[in-house]
Amino acid sequence: MEQHGGNIYRVSRETGIPEKELVDFSASINPLGVPSCVVSAIENAISNLPNYPEPYAEPLVSHLASYLGVNRETIICGNGSTELIYLIARALSPEKVLIPAPTFSEYERACRLICGMRGVRLELKKKENFDIDPDLFIRTMRGCDLAFLCNPNNPTGRLLERKALLQIAHAAARIKCYLVVDEAFIDFCQGETVINEVANNHFLIVLRSLTKIYALSGLRVGYGVFPPTLAVLMGQHKEPWTVNTLAQRAGIVALNDAAYKQESLRMMKEEKKFMEKNFRSLGIAYIPSSANYYLIQMEKAQQAIVRLKRKGILVRDCSNFAGLDESYIRVAVKSRRDNALLVKELSHLCRG
Amino acid sequence: MEQHGGNIYRVSRETGIPEKELVDFSASINPLGVPSCVVSAIENAISNLPNYPEPYAEPLVSHLASYLGVNRETIICGNGSTELIYLIARALSPEKVLIPAPTFSEYERACRLICGMRGVRLELKKKENFDIDPDLFIRTMRGCDLAFLCNPNNPTGRLLERKALLQIAHAAARIKCYLVVDEAFIDFCQGETVINEVANNHFLIVLRSLTKIYALSGLRVGYGVFPPTLAVLMGQHKEPWTVNTLAQRAGIVALNDAAYKQESLRMMKEEKKFMEKNFRSLGIAYIPSSANYYLIQMEKAQQAIVRLKRKGILVRDCSNFAGLDESYIRVAVKSRRDNALLVKELSHLCRG
Repeated sequence: MEQHGGNIYRVSRETGIPEKELVDFSASINPLGVPSCVVSAIENAISNLPNYPEPYAEPLVSHLASYLGVNRETIICGNGSTELIYLIARALSPEKVLIPAPTFSEYERACRLICGMRGVRLELKKKENFDIDPDLFIRTMRGCDLAFLCNPNNPTGRLLERKALLQIAHAAARIKCYLVVDEAFIDFCQGETVINEVANNHFLIVLRSLTKIYALSGLRVGYGVFPPTLAVLMGQHKEPWTVNTLAQRAGIVALNDAAYKQESLRMMKEEKKFMEKNFRSLGIAYIPSSANYYLIQMEKAQQAIVRLKRKGILVRDCSNFAGLDESYIRVAVKSRRDNALLVKELSHLCRG
Repeated sequence: MEQHGGNIYRVSRETGIPEKELVDFSASINPLGVPSCVVSAIENAISNLPNYPEPYAEPLVSHLASYLGVNRETIICGNGSTELIYLIARALSPEKVLIPAPTFSEYERACRLICGMRGVRLELKKKENFDIDPDLFIRTMRGCDLAFLCNPNNPTGRLLERKALLQIAHAAARIKCYLVVDEAFIDFCQGETVINEVANNHFLIVLRSLTKIYALSGLRVGYGVFPPTLAVLMGQHKEPWTVNTLAQRAGIVALNDAAYKQESLRMMKEEKKFMEKNFRSLGIAYIPSSANYYLIQMEKAQQAIVRLKRKGILVRDCSNFAGLDESYIRVAVKSRRDNALLVKELSHLCRG
């Protein structure tokens, strides 16, 4: 069982600090919280719980289709996009899979569980800010039947621009290697999605999450856009009823809340400026990020993690990411009050 | 994609009848609805949704362990017990699987998706009320590495008594064939569970659901009790975060509501008497059931299904169950008002 960030419940048990008093920078979730219209929608849908959910989340699929401008037959909803990562691994049963390092660890775990799979690791270089080099990615992709590309990447926040990504996607089609672009955090980078390219590329799959931007991690809802024949294959392997009724309803209502999204982007821009200014003034090395989190590096990172935890502040220890060592920490961008608290504690650590 | 009962949303779209006006006998869910303490617990937990769920539902697991009197390391929670059926198939990757007919169709689908699996179908006989013959089950189990036994069975409601079931479980251990006993509906049959036998039998797995008795189908929560080594194996294959935060909380609170369960059993007993009396007086053939549903047989079943649907009454067409034909219908036991409505409509059909 992998270790991830965001487990405030376990930390609460370990430290004795009540959950509500913990400040969690270890999961990268919109600090504005669940949109209020979504809270109401969830409350209203509780009366539907005796009924099974729609087995394949049909109304959410239809809503997404018109929201995204893609064919509804190409969308599959999941119990978080994590379900879809595992579904893809099972349905494609790949023999050789390209996975960059560092990146989200569930790609490798999902593929390792499929017998016979060989992983091909593409080590991203620190001196290049862990950026993906499109030419190297394409060369490494040769001979693979599946490749994962998290954009912006987790835990670095580095974005591969649309043009470079499409270059890789075209190469994937030529090579006949399925390319999974995980856009879990792309809501924070406007105009960069390649979701509308899936219709033109039989080897491109795009995964999205509704839990980061709409703060619904606890409810679990994500989706993928697949080329038509792959969507049929996924349907053959898909388990029924995986997206619960409240998540389906929440997803529909959240997508309609354009004002919430706009305010989130505005606030995020401002808070990122605040964080970067403070990282610089404290002399903390950080990777410039297109997402709502930063990968920072500190000599005494492990000590910092322990000291912050004692004060009820959680950050993501990145030492278990392939390709990173014990000096890396990922911190989410939160509200000004929380960010200022983190900065204050980091400044004590840097000076102490 | 399989067809199941309980899809009121699709029927509403097909018929134009609003969901709230449909009377659904096609899914077998406690007619008392979600316990009120569970509704409150769900509402209170909405504020936790920005946080990820506990990845493996640890507090619900602990609560179940003390509720059931089993070791917490042997319990795995799932996004409904359906997730666990698929998890078992993947983790055990069986070559030859015994599946009775008729029974819940997801066992066969889950196993069919594992490459190389051969199904061995045990046809249950109508003249024996589709009962499982323990000796025949044991003989057929030889040479299999996995067997499914739904108790009480779906869609018949037939219960294999504890003593007979333990005879099969002992044989399974001798033969070294894993036996999955799916007790999704056993809350309606007090004292019959074999969950406490798992500790003594390395080949026995018991699955349970919290969605039938507590009317939480839309929220998805089930669990399994596994022999220790199997629990470790399942953990290696388990996807993280599959049980959402609201489902985890609802499960804990529901288990504490002993009065609700008691009232459910009292009401169910009374309503089953009412249904059976009316089936007899209408001359409708039914299989005596230990669960909260009946398998009935009517010459013009397909016509009845269509006519009932037009009136907003859904029943489960059982023609797609392996081993049943077009004359079989499954009906849930609901509230007196709903049951009386069904009886009235069935009497029109029988006379018309």
